Amino acid sequence: MTEDLKVFLNESKQKIDERLPHFIEKLQAPESLKESMNYSLKAGGKRLRPVLLLAVLEGFGKSSEKGIEAACAIEMVHTYSLIHDDLPAMDDDDVRRGKPTNHKVFGEAAAILAGDALLTYSFELLSTLTEDPEIVVSLIAEFARAIGAEGMVGGQISDMEGENKDLSIAELENIHHHKTGDLMVYSIVAGAILAGATEEDKTNLRKFGRELGLLFQIKDDILDIEGDVASIGKPVGSDAGNNKGTYPSILGMQGAKERLEAHIDLAVTSLKKVDMDHTMLMELTKYVANRNH
Amino acid sequence: MTEDLKVFLNESKQKIDERLPHFIEKLQAPESLKESMNYSLKAGGKRLRPVLLLAVLEGFGKSSEKGIEAACAIEMVHTYSLIHDDLPAMDDDDVRRGKPTNHKVFGEAAAILAGDALLTYSFELLSTLTEDPEIVVSLIAEFARAIGAEGMVGGQISDMEGENKDLSIAELENIHHHKTGDLMVYSIVAGAILAGATEEDKTNLRKFGRELGLLFQIKDDILDIEGDVASIGKPVGSDAGNNKGTYPSILGMQGAKERLEAHIDLAVTSLKKVDMDHTMLMELTKYVANRNH
Repeated sequence: MTEDLKVFLNESKQKIDERLPHFIEKLQAPESLKESMNYSLKAGGKRLRPVLLLAVLEGFGKSSEKGIEAACAIEMVHTYSLIHDDLPAMDDDDVRRGKPTNHKVFGEAAAILAGDALLTYSFELLSTLTEDPEIVVSLIAEFARAIGAEGMVGGQISDMEGENKDLSIAELENIHHHKTGDLMVYSIVAGAILAGATEEDKTNLRKFGRELGLLFQIKDDILDIEGDVASIGKPVGSDAGNNKGTYPSILGMQGAKERLEAHIDLAVTSLKKVDMDHTMLMELTKYVANRNH
Repeated sequence: MTEDLKVFLNESKQKIDERLPHFIEKLQAPESLKESMNYSLKAGGKRLRPVLLLAVLEGFGKSSEKGIEAACAIEMVHTYSLIHDDLPAMDDDDVRRGKPTNHKVFGEAAAILAGDALLTYSFELLSTLTEDPEIVVSLIAEFARAIGAEGMVGGQISDMEGENKDLSIAELENIHHHKTGDLMVYSIVAGAILAGATEEDKTNLRKFGRELGLLFQIKDDILDIEGDVASIGKPVGSDAGNNKGTYPSILGMQGAKERLEAHIDLAVTSLKKVDMDHTMLMELTKYVANRNH
């Protein structure tokens, strides 16, 4: 990792870590609800999606301050999706990011509602942006599509339905495009919308985002086999335990690694077409592809 | 019920019943997800919230067509809240509106996700309105506040926390204001926003909505004791079984009925201050207060 990327990642993560709890604390809502919302928000993680949004803004020469609310809204939705995914009725996970999952601490009912509240609040945050209302509406419309039945939630259903089945690579990619890819693509496109990017640039950033989402997932699958529990914060091999199709299970480890390289090339090709400073997004792509947790 | 109200209720319900499934069917999403979303949407009910929105529009002399998307968005959120409320971790209800609850038919995981998808889609629907984008943003901002941590979800948490406790009337009212009232108030205010009502009219309609929400709830509590299962579609006395505070349990049946009358008077007083044709909303208020299911 270059020193510039390290500084950017740290500063971006710090901004998000600082602002996220503040948005919750000011709510006039039951304290227990705010506590469970903040518990999972503070559980941290890499803040990759917010970082992507801020990196796009900076790449277009805009201040990252412009994107804080949208970045926090995205992180709230990511967090809600993890809370609901971890529920006993879903993946039934006890540990997330090295800490007990939300429902293990607050109970299932509170966890479901904390997720619902985070999802709802993310839209409220976007609706308070002081941008041109046409831009706000477009940010909200695109957000809802990315995370709803046609996006993330649909992907989660396809993922569940794909368990214990022999998936083709096309089916696996379709799941990942929606389950994790659509929100990642949105993070990038939201930055472009806020920066006032051209349609052409948005299209190429969207392509870049899709490749980045896939390579992120392939790397995740590889780490699930080759990583260690202390680094990745969840039990190694947990995907295999759930009988879920993965890139290594379909292509073999070598095939998965080759596929990872291919998606890196495609991501870089699309990114280079965008009229912006690519430095940070390029570094981020390498970081996502080479991370060890 | 007057003949005019009967016709209006039937026509409005029919419009909503027709349009709701159409919005789901056109989604590019897993069929099983669309099926579970539509199962609960089609389970019907009175469509009271959409009807309120359409009645406000008509009261201001506007076509109810103008409010169909917003009315459907509101019904989607009402439906999502019922799906999540019925889950085993929450109220654990097997029957809703005389039919098996969503999770009894599709399983818990699918029910959680159908709720998530309906909530998300409601925001997408609002974001596609062709009104002035400033109006759309204001509709979305107010919606998110009404149904999130400060509104409906917060009310659900307070309701759960109030179980097995001796609640005061003030505490009970606070729960109802948020758990059921805020979305009902929103239905009315959304109609006013779409009709281009003045701030003063919106304020008085908001007061009217709060009273209507309370009298709706008091009547619900009374029906839970005095109603019969065939009419209300859920076991009579189910609230008492959950050890939840109710108006009759705190005030006695006579006290609850007096309180109902008091809220009717307050509702009518606020409504009369609004510069609109009040006929239908007045009739609706009487209908809500006197219904037997």
